[in-house]
Amino acid sequence: MDPTLDGPRLLEELEALGKIGLGSSGGINRVAYSPADREARAWVQDRMRELGLNVTTDQAGNSIGVYPGEVPHLPPIGLGSHTDTVPEGGRYDGALGVVAAIACVRAVQRAGVRLRHPVEVINFAAEEATMAGATVGSRAMAGLLGHSAVEQVAWDGRPVAEHLRGAGLDPAKISEAQRPKGSLAAYLELHVEQGGMLEAARAPGGVVEGLVGIRRLAVTFHGFANHAGTTPMAARRDALVMAAPYILAVRNLAVSHGIVATVGTLSLQPGAPNVIPGRVELGLEIRALHELELDDAEGHLATQARHAGAEFRHVSSKPPVKSDPRLVEALTEACGELGLRFRRMPSGAGHDAMCIASVAPQAMLFVPSRGGVSHSRGEYTAPEDCVAGARVLLAALLKLDSRLDSGQS
Amino acid sequence: MDPTLDGPRLLEELEALGKIGLGSSGGINRVAYSPADREARAWVQDRMRELGLNVTTDQAGNSIGVYPGEVPHLPPIGLGSHTDTVPEGGRYDGALGVVAAIACVRAVQRAGVRLRHPVEVINFAAEEATMAGATVGSRAMAGLLGHSAVEQVAWDGRPVAEHLRGAGLDPAKISEAQRPKGSLAAYLELHVEQGGMLEAARAPGGVVEGLVGIRRLAVTFHGFANHAGTTPMAARRDALVMAAPYILAVRNLAVSHGIVATVGTLSLQPGAPNVIPGRVELGLEIRALHELELDDAEGHLATQARHAGAEFRHVSSKPPVKSDPRLVEALTEACGELGLRFRRMPSGAGHDAMCIASVAPQAMLFVPSRGGVSHSRGEYTAPEDCVAGARVLLAALLKLDSRLDSGQS
Repeated sequence: MDPTLDGPRLLEELEALGKIGLGSSGGINRVAYSPADREARAWVQDRMRELGLNVTTDQAGNSIGVYPGEVPHLPPIGLGSHTDTVPEGGRYDGALGVVAAIACVRAVQRAGVRLRHPVEVINFAAEEATMAGATVGSRAMAGLLGHSAVEQVAWDGRPVAEHLRGAGLDPAKISEAQRPKGSLAAYLELHVEQGGMLEAARAPGGVVEGLVGIRRLAVTFHGFANHAGTTPMAARRDALVMAAPYILAVRNLAVSHGIVATVGTLSLQPGAPNVIPGRVELGLEIRALHELELDDAEGHLATQARHAGAEFRHVSSKPPVKSDPRLVEALTEACGELGLRFRRMPSGAGHDAMCIASVAPQAMLFVPSRGGVSHSRGEYTAPEDCVAGARVLLAALLKLDSRLDSGQS
Repeated sequence: MDPTLDGPRLLEELEALGKIGLGSSGGINRVAYSPADREARAWVQDRMRELGLNVTTDQAGNSIGVYPGEVPHLPPIGLGSHTDTVPEGGRYDGALGVVAAIACVRAVQRAGVRLRHPVEVINFAAEEATMAGATVGSRAMAGLLGHSAVEQVAWDGRPVAEHLRGAGLDPAKISEAQRPKGSLAAYLELHVEQGGMLEAARAPGGVVEGLVGIRRLAVTFHGFANHAGTTPMAARRDALVMAAPYILAVRNLAVSHGIVATVGTLSLQPGAPNVIPGRVELGLEIRALHELELDDAEGHLATQARHAGAEFRHVSSKPPVKSDPRLVEALTEACGELGLRFRRMPSGAGHDAMCIASVAPQAMLFVPSRGGVSHSRGEYTAPEDCVAGARVLLAALLKLDSRLDSGQS
C-alpha cells in the first residue's frame, strides 16, 4: 500500500496545537522558551513518540524525532518547521509545517513501509524574531549562531541566556547543537506564505526557489533649516521636498525591476512646524532573489540619490539563499502529479530552511495566507490548502528518498 | 536745525550692545530675564537716561523711556524693539530697533527741537520664543497674555514665573503691564528681515504691510503596515508612498499661490526598516497676509488630501495683522525722500509690533539680512543698511508727529 496522508487527522492536530498559548483576544502566545512554548513542544514530542520515533532535544532546544530508514548509514531527510510564535501570533506560521511533517511520517508508518533514508521530524526552537534576531535553533544547528547571541537581549529586555536557562538549557552549550555538513540528506519545509502573492495568483502552492537577499541602505538629504514664515519658496532648500520624489522613485524602481523595495524609516530634522526641514534621512531596503538584481537596483538608487544631491550609504547586506534544484524539482513534480496549481517564487522572509541551507540541501513549499496576513490572530490558511501542501510534502519526500544517495545504495 | 541721525554713533552702540552676552563661539546669549538680558536692559536704560528720558520698567519687564512732547495730553509715539535673544543668537535681531529708537530721540534732542507728541523708546521684554510662546512683554502690554502664561514652562524646563521672579518681577502682577487702547498714538519698529527677500530683490528697505496669518494643519495617510519582504509591490498600501506626492503638492500650491507653505513634521509608523509604513502624519502650516488667501489655500489642500484618501485636520489658526495705512504711507514716503529702494512686503514672523497692533496703530520697516540668516551668530546686516533704516524711522517719526492727532492740536 502506498503511503496516504490523513488530512482530517492533520487538521485535528493543527487545531489542538492552536489551543496551546491561546490568549483571550484570539492570538497565540508561544514565545520561544516560555512555558506555553515548552507545552507545545512537549505536545509535539508526544505525537512523535506515538509514532515510535526516537525523540531527542539538542542544546538549542530543537526537538528531533527520528523514524529509522532501511539502508544503513544513509543520512536522514529532515521535515519540519517551528511551534514558537510572536506575541499574539497566528495558528499556522510554523505549526503547519510541524504537524505536516508528523503527518508524512504517520502516512509512511501506517502504510507499513520503510524508506531508504531515515526521516527526521524537526521542531526548531526560537524561529521568531523574539530572540537574538530569529532562527536561533536552526542557526545553532547550522553553526551560524555567533557566540554573542546568548548575551543579546530578547524581545522582553531579558538576556537570551536567561530564557534558555528558564527552559532548562545551558547557554554555554548551545554550540553543541551544531551538526556537520552532510548530516542531513535534504531538508523540506511546508510553511504559510505570509504574503499575498499566492492568493492574488489563485495558486494554492508556491515552490520556493530561494530566500531573497536584503540590502539595507540609507539616503540623507541635506537642505537648510530656516524660518517657515520668512523664507520665500524660491529661496528654500527643503530636505523633505528633496526627499519626496526619491520615495516615489524607490517604489517605481521596485515595480519596474520586479523586486520589492521599501522606505521604512524617515527621520526629519529639526522637525518643528515652523521650521523648514534641514535634513531628512531615509532608511530603505531592497530584496531580490539574485545578487545581480540587487546590484543593479542598488546602483540605480545610488545614481538617483547622487542626482538628487543626497548622500547614499550602504548599511548592510544579506546574500540570497538558493533552494537546491533537485528538491525544487521534486516539489514541482509532486505539485504537478497531485494537480496542484503552483507558482515558483522567492521567499521574502527568512525561515529555518534557509539557515539549514548551510549544512544541507533545502527547499520549501508555501501555501496561501488569506489577505497576506501573518503574525496576527487574523492569520488563516484554508484547510484544503493545508492538506494539499502536506500531500505535496509527502510526495516530494518519497521522490527524494528514492533519488538521493542512489549511488550509495 | 533739522534732526539728523548720527550713523556712526548708532553703529558704535550696536557694537557695544553686541558684547553683552557674547559667547566664546560668537553667538549672543541674552535669553529673556537672564543676567545677560538684564545687563543689556540696564545698558539701554543708561543710554535712555543720558538723553534725559524718564525711564520706568513695567510689571512684565518692559523698559520704557519717555522724551516729553510739546502739546499737552497727546499720546506718545512709540519706537522700539527688544534686546533679548535666542540662545546663541545674533547681534541685529531686536537690538537694531532699540538702538535706532535711541538714535532717533538723540537726533531730535540734539537738534534742540520738541515734537508735538512725546516719544517713547520701548525695549520689550521676552520677545523671543524662549518664554511662553514669545512676545511676552508686548502681549502683556496689549492685554493679550493669558493668565496661564506665567505657569508655562520656558525653554529650559523651568516655569516662566520662576524666570520672572529671578529678574525681580512679581508673576502675579504681570497683567498690570497692560495699557489701554489709545495710550500710544502710533508704534514704529525697525527690524532685520530674518529672511532673504530683500537681499534677493536688492532692496535695502522693506515696508511691512502686515503680519501673515498662520494656519496649522495635519494630514494623516492610513496605509497598511505589512512585511517589507513578503508583500508584493502591487499589494501594498504604503502610507509614505501615499504621502510623498502630497508633500510636493503643498510646495507647488505655495509657489502657484504666491504664499509660503511648509511640511515641517512627519511621523511614520511603525518606523521599522522591514515594515511597510502603515500610517504617516504630516504637520504643515501655510502663511499669507490675507484671510482669503489662507481660506483658498486651505481649501485646496483639504481637497487634495481627500483625493489622496487622507484625513485632513485644521489644527489652529492665527489671523493676519494689518499694518496701519497711515504709518505704512509715512514709511513709504520716507523711503522715497531718502532715495531708499524698498519693497512692500508681509512679515512672515511675529514681532512686538504685531502684538501692539491691538492697542495702537503700528507698522514696521525691515532691513536686509545677509543670506536670510537669523537666530544665529551668522546674522548680519550691512552697516549702511542699519543706518539707512534708522534714518527712515526718524523721517517717518517726524511725519507722523505732524500728521497724527492734528485735529486735536
